[in-house]
Amino acid sequence: MAYYDLYGKDLLTTQWWSKEELNAVLDLAKDLKMKYYSRVPHEYLKDKNFIMMFYNTSTRTRLSFETAMTHLGGHAIYLEPKMMRLTESGKKGESIKDTAIVMSRYADGIGIRLLEDKITYYGEGHAIIKEWARHATVPVIDMASDRFHPCQGLTDIFTAKEKLGNVEGKKYVIMWAYSPWARSWGSVQEDALIMSRYGMDVTIAHPPGYDLDPEVMKWVKQNAEENGREFVVTTDLEEALQGAHVVFPRNWHSPRRYEIGKEAEAKEAEKYKNWKLTMEMLEKYTDKALFMHVMPVDRGDEVDDEVADSEYSVIYDQAENRLHVQKAILTLVMGGRL
Amino acid sequence: MAYYDLYGKDLLTTQWWSKEELNAVLDLAKDLKMKYYSRVPHEYLKDKNFIMMFYNTSTRTRLSFETAMTHLGGHAIYLEPKMMRLTESGKKGESIKDTAIVMSRYADGIGIRLLEDKITYYGEGHAIIKEWARHATVPVIDMASDRFHPCQGLTDIFTAKEKLGNVEGKKYVIMWAYSPWARSWGSVQEDALIMSRYGMDVTIAHPPGYDLDPEVMKWVKQNAEENGREFVVTTDLEEALQGAHVVFPRNWHSPRRYEIGKEAEAKEAEKYKNWKLTMEMLEKYTDKALFMHVMPVDRGDEVDDEVADSEYSVIYDQAENRLHVQKAILTLVMGGRL
Amino acid sequence: MAYYDLYGKDLLTTQWWSKEELNAVLDLAKDLKMKYYSRVPHEYLKDKNFIMMFYNTSTRTRLSFETAMTHLGGHAIYLEPKMMRLTESGKKGESIKDTAIVMSRYADGIGIRLLEDKITYYGEGHAIIKEWARHATVPVIDMASDRFHPCQGLTDIFTAKEKLGNVEGKKYVIMWAYSPWARSWGSVQEDALIMSRYGMDVTIAHPPGYDLDPEVMKWVKQNAEENGREFVVTTDLEEALQGAHVVFPRNWHSPRRYEIGKEAEAKEAEKYKNWKLTMEMLEKYTDKALFMHVMPVDRGDEVDDEVADSEYSVIYDQAENRLHVQKAILTLVMGGRL
Repeated sequence: MAYYDLYGKDLLTTQWWSKEELNAVLDLAKDLKMKYYSRVPHEYLKDKNFIMMFYNTSTRTRLSFETAMTHLGGHAIYLEPKMMRLTESGKKGESIKDTAIVMSRYADGIGIRLLEDKITYYGEGHAIIKEWARHATVPVIDMASDRFHPCQGLTDIFTAKEKLGNVEGKKYVIMWAYSPWARSWGSVQEDALIMSRYGMDVTIAHPPGYDLDPEVMKWVKQNAEENGREFVVTTDLEEALQGAHVVFPRNWHSPRRYEIGKEAEAKEAEKYKNWKLTMEMLEKYTDKALFMHVMPVDRGDEVDDEVADSEYSVIYDQAENRLHVQKAILTLVMGGRL
Repeated sequence: MAYYDLYGKDLLTTQWWSKEELNAVLDLAKDLKMKYYSRVPHEYLKDKNFIMMFYNTSTRTRLSFETAMTHLGGHAIYLEPKMMRLTESGKKGESIKDTAIVMSRYADGIGIRLLEDKITYYGEGHAIIKEWARHATVPVIDMASDRFHPCQGLTDIFTAKEKLGNVEGKKYVIMWAYSPWARSWGSVQEDALIMSRYGMDVTIAHPPGYDLDPEVMKWVKQNAEENGREFVVTTDLEEALQGAHVVFPRNWHSPRRYEIGKEAEAKEAEKYKNWKLTMEMLEKYTDKALFMHVMPVDRGDEVDDEVADSEYSVIYDQAENRLHVQKAILTLVMGGRL
Repeated sequence: MAYYDLYGKDLLTTQWWSKEELNAVLDLAKDLKMKYYSRVPHEYLKDKNFIMMFYNTSTRTRLSFETAMTHLGGHAIYLEPKMMRLTESGKKGESIKDTAIVMSRYADGIGIRLLEDKITYYGEGHAIIKEWARHATVPVIDMASDRFHPCQGLTDIFTAKEKLGNVEGKKYVIMWAYSPWARSWGSVQEDALIMSRYGMDVTIAHPPGYDLDPEVMKWVKQNAEENGREFVVTTDLEEALQGAHVVFPRNWHSPRRYEIGKEAEAKEAEKYKNWKLTMEMLEKYTDKALFMHVMPVDRGDEVDDEVADSEYSVIYDQAENRLHVQKAILTLVMGGRL
């Protein structure tokens, strides 16, 4: 595989990219991070345009992509579907096909964020992004959906490797945590996928009734088997945390979320307010685990400030790595000249 | 006329530019399109800023102008009047005069889109844009109004010439088509103006009660006469399509739209659901006519998918040409150094 | 002091910068203005990103900062808090701390505008911006708050010096003026601070009940004393205008604004509709004073058109100077290489 093999490729989940392709991103991200701090110019996407379609609001994703394009010499265009005549799913308006093809005539890549309250059932966000990818003639990047979050996944493995060195055989624990926010599954599922892919032992701990997507779980299991590693799903938090090298405490909604609504979902979650990462738990059970989080952190609910502000926490470095990793992704799929 | 004669010139309708000036745009657009595909840099507007004021939402117009400015080395600023303190017509706030003069101190050009539900009577959009142009000391470009759409008109003649070669004496048919969207007159009127200007035989077909602006129609007639060509307005669709080289099926509202409201207008239009371009009509009556459309297309209403997806359709190339044509316009009026 | 001493420095009010630091801005602004008109490239912030957070809408501030970043070779990112998951003051969401630190990992500077109806008590806007500045690791710039408006203040002294030459001992009159807009105190307070700092005699005239922030007034008094100049607050408008070299007529709300609400405030102000700058007043009482204004001007209320459009008016040049002054500020605090 050569770098230019990624030219034009969609990124809907890391699971559909080969290990070699993912490694190409991680290698280039490392190189770009060094160049950034050494002030070595790297305008690989001079004059190119990346369209960012935000059905849902965003801080990190928008800022990291927009600054990424500036560093690379190009430009990112911020679109909210309401700024356009494009209809949201289900309503009549310009077809995705027509819009995707036309956008492909102007810009060099399209990113889409679609999850949470902007969809009506689990899987719809991913399905719509796939529809865009099918028609667009430029690469489409999932910038967070209900199922996946590949840019976050790549950032998280990049960060884990940066902090732990060799990650093989290290234990990555994703724990459900209380919050009224009823977050989508994209981040936790993508992390389970990529961490198992890179040979980490993955454990997912959650209260009864918070199962994730069975198909994705099957993929995680396969990834673990291929690497001869463990994949455990449990409702026993204490057991899950034993010997962890990384803990990612994160709220997510139950499979009934789009049936019962966000309010009811938040209400239900209150039964498990004790699912919160505390300093005591971290020091008692884990192997001095890193606290990682895709942010925003619901401080006081998902995790205590004491942990979030401690030396165990790498969340700001992790957030920064979004920038470097996405610069690598954009460069590779949009045909940057290295 | 030299290229630099266009420096500082407003573009409110193609009708008010000389043939030489319009040709300068078409020539430069062709050159820029070639440069784009050959990856020849053309940063003619380095460091320059173009303000895009969108009273109405937009996909193609916004993306084509914003990517255009990136290619030219400058920057486009996306403004919605609600982001500003500026009042919409009729309400009290900062005067257009003050805002236009101040904007002219920061930016090198101003584009304005104002039509449909953002105005209260036909002609108001154009009148407000004219008011901006009167006070601004940098060029003002109509980016679609209730009366005109010069960037679209230039794109359409550019596309017609690209596809047909010599357009003189060829037949351009604008047919009213059913849609609940009640579209403004800008696009169809601008096309009638510029196609007649370039020596095409123009025919407009619509059901009774869908007359366009009489003053604009008079100009089209003059254009046709000056070129020794025909300009026909008819309610007989079959007759209109005979021997057509281009068909542009497009919904527009009746002259009563701002009296009766959009809902009533859409209701009225339902009487003419049979005004739709079908493959049968295209193959039976026309001379293998091109299907052109300014987009968005109301598929299933204005035209059948079968036509929109056929080899007769040039809509995606037409949409792409917005980019090249607008790059030429921006370069010429904003003082690009060629 | 060297230019690079300003690298990384927050700008929350000019009062907290030394005279030397303020002079560095004014000197560089003059140089950049000359370079702009001579078309000398000055891409001092190549590849750098400036985040503009607009809790309140804006015309001049947004456009002047965004065009500034283009001229300097960088990029400005337009954010409204509603585009993000960030909560407005008082509501639960991502913490300012987390957001400020993460933003600092992507961008090179952050500007914040927060005043008027987006706050619940006088001083809250400034307090929130201070909170951002405390956590951000890149410079934070007040882009207009309820207390201060440093970029405007620097622009106004720059303009006063440009028009009057030596400003020492000249009289700068800030007069309250009627308008239903109930404007915040930032602009008038910043102007009183910086004009007294640069040795002008400052007079503030307002009807009874329109006192400004006592702490800021104390600082103005100190500034005046240090320069051996006068600072007068009076309710006698005629007296105030005597011998003025500059008059800035501007509406502001009473200290009760957040208690009684904007509607009641506007109602109250109607008692003083005669507080308006007229040509007669200007010619009868002042020393051919310049009419200055931060804009938007409420024409007909704050000032007569006759004055705003006269040769006494320098408001458009003043507005333009925002661009040059802010380019100087951005360059100095964000580490531009001169």
